[in-house]
Amino acid sequence: MVGYDRDGATLEAALARGALDSAADTVSDALAGADACFVCAPVGALPALVVDALAAAPSACVVTDVGSTKRTIVEAISDERFVGGHPIAGSELAGIGAARADLFDGAAWYLTPGEKSSGVLYERLHQLLVALGAHPVAIDAAAHDRLLATVSHLPHVLANVLVAMSPADSVVRAGPSFRDLTRVAGANPAIWTDIYLSNASAIADAIEDTIERLAEVASMLRASNADAVARWSDDALRERKRLLDADLAVAPTHELRVVVPNRPGVLAELTLSLGRAGVNIVDLALAPAPDNRSGAITFWVAGAHAAARASELLEQLGFPTMGEP
Amino acid sequence: MVGYDRDGATLEAALARGALDSAADTVSDALAGADACFVCAPVGALPALVVDALAAAPSACVVTDVGSTKRTIVEAISDERFVGGHPIAGSELAGIGAARADLFDGAAWYLTPGEKSSGVLYERLHQLLVALGAHPVAIDAAAHDRLLATVSHLPHVLANVLVAMSPADSVVRAGPSFRDLTRVAGANPAIWTDIYLSNASAIADAIEDTIERLAEVASMLRASNADAVARWSDDALRERKRLLDADLAVAPTHELRVVVPNRPGVLAELTLSLGRAGVNIVDLALAPAPDNRSGAITFWVAGAHAAARASELLEQLGFPTMGEP
Repeated sequence: MVGYDRDGATLEAALARGALDSAADTVSDALAGADACFVCAPVGALPALVVDALAAAPSACVVTDVGSTKRTIVEAISDERFVGGHPIAGSELAGIGAARADLFDGAAWYLTPGEKSSGVLYERLHQLLVALGAHPVAIDAAAHDRLLATVSHLPHVLANVLVAMSPADSVVRAGPSFRDLTRVAGANPAIWTDIYLSNASAIADAIEDTIERLAEVASMLRASNADAVARWSDDALRERKRLLDADLAVAPTHELRVVVPNRPGVLAELTLSLGRAGVNIVDLALAPAPDNRSGAITFWVAGAHAAARASELLEQLGFPTMGEP
Repeated sequence: MVGYDRDGATLEAALARGALDSAADTVSDALAGADACFVCAPVGALPALVVDALAAAPSACVVTDVGSTKRTIVEAISDERFVGGHPIAGSELAGIGAARADLFDGAAWYLTPGEKSSGVLYERLHQLLVALGAHPVAIDAAAHDRLLATVSHLPHVLANVLVAMSPADSVVRAGPSFRDLTRVAGANPAIWTDIYLSNASAIADAIEDTIERLAEVASMLRASNADAVARWSDDALRERKRLLDADLAVAPTHELRVVVPNRPGVLAELTLSLGRAGVNIVDLALAPAPDNRSGAITFWVAGAHAAARASELLEQLGFPTMGEP
């Protein structure tokens, strides 16, 4: 694990914490002989840094990033070694001081392979993330940005709006729900201003959806409509339970194998199709045939229902599955 | 600690958990010889239950409630033994199964003494809450409801709206900010429908304020106004720091003594004035004079600045302070 940062003090702190085995003076030094490269910076700075990393990285090195929006970077980079990434982890804290060995345990890690992304390098990245304890999920870059606008960027917007409205003189007086909803308020403005701007129109859409829903609630309340308020509370409870149940669902893993031609984009096509269908790919492995013109991909999928759905989808795409189910 | 509940199973569970010393079959049995009574129920049911409790309670028993809105109950009850209350504690969990011995450690506990509330009984309740580890804060009932509309009811509304918007199939995939903002979504619908309805117009005001602020953010984003977005993020960070700093501020305690006539409403007047001015009353004690027509009230106040402000206010109300500062 070799690190490079333009700030020497950050590098030293990372070494002292054991987050790095060694520190490099340049991007080239850091990438000499590397198998994988993670580019971590505010999203506005990423395209230029990824270009630098690709220029310095060996030809068999997968390069990824951890930016919170994906469309801009994926459109900017077409190198077959690049796969966009976004781990769903972290807290309101920032910097090497907030590093934790278990940061990615059980965390979803979105991957946005492009049409040109190499299948072999995608597999390596996927397995590396699984080894970190994360759950890689393939997703189309535009779908990722729309999803995150609602489930991450909008919560940050709401936290910022709420904290600015507080007349309370302390979080303790305001109480636990206020504390929960404002924890991420003002999170690292340097990072977040970039995120807001790089996904501005999807976030504005989500905000306008929120405004409509809030206006409905205000009008139920102004009308003292007890039935509507009770129904709305019940719906929220049901919705939250659905999400929690999805997290708790522990399903046995099924193995699916398909033989595919060895051309760029095949793995992206398959993982994205399965991701779109909500299939959780627990792990995957590539085995090129000796002639290197085709290869087998093995997917491990959680749950019998998801496995059946995956099998159906793969067949529709022209790749009948072997093995169970 | 004697408990009464209309549901026998709940009473048994409370006994088994050690939350009660004994269980009573009726409200009257529970209140025989009681010094203080806490009425805990959804806010819609409170007025009738508080009337029952007052009918059964001894003449020197303080009766309070823990309802999340205070205007309705305070307007309904004019007994001198009643002081409205609202602890700012708890979680998205409900019921005796979620009981914890440290639930009120460091928690603000709003008290809304009415004009008729007895000073002696207010003092007893205040000291009892301090003994539980809570920080009692006197506040006018209408001001309480407006404040809570923003710092508690609005967060619940936002959580409900957000959870209904989620296209994600799990909280883990949605990430930590979504988890934080939706933790209270659908919280105990039986309790919350009552809360929303009993404070409907203040909550609708807070929602409409939120809508205006959200519309501003959406328009900054549509205009890609980087300066405005950065300023808005910075402001949110500053506002959150201000609230956290207020919690961290540990200030030495100052003692203030005033002599007051022994008439109803004096203590309410003083504690509410100090509460409005943001003075944190750490503790208070009453000492009636032997003729019982006047008495001394000692306030312990956190921080030199607050103590000076309290001294000034008490003097303006006609009660010059003795002791420090």
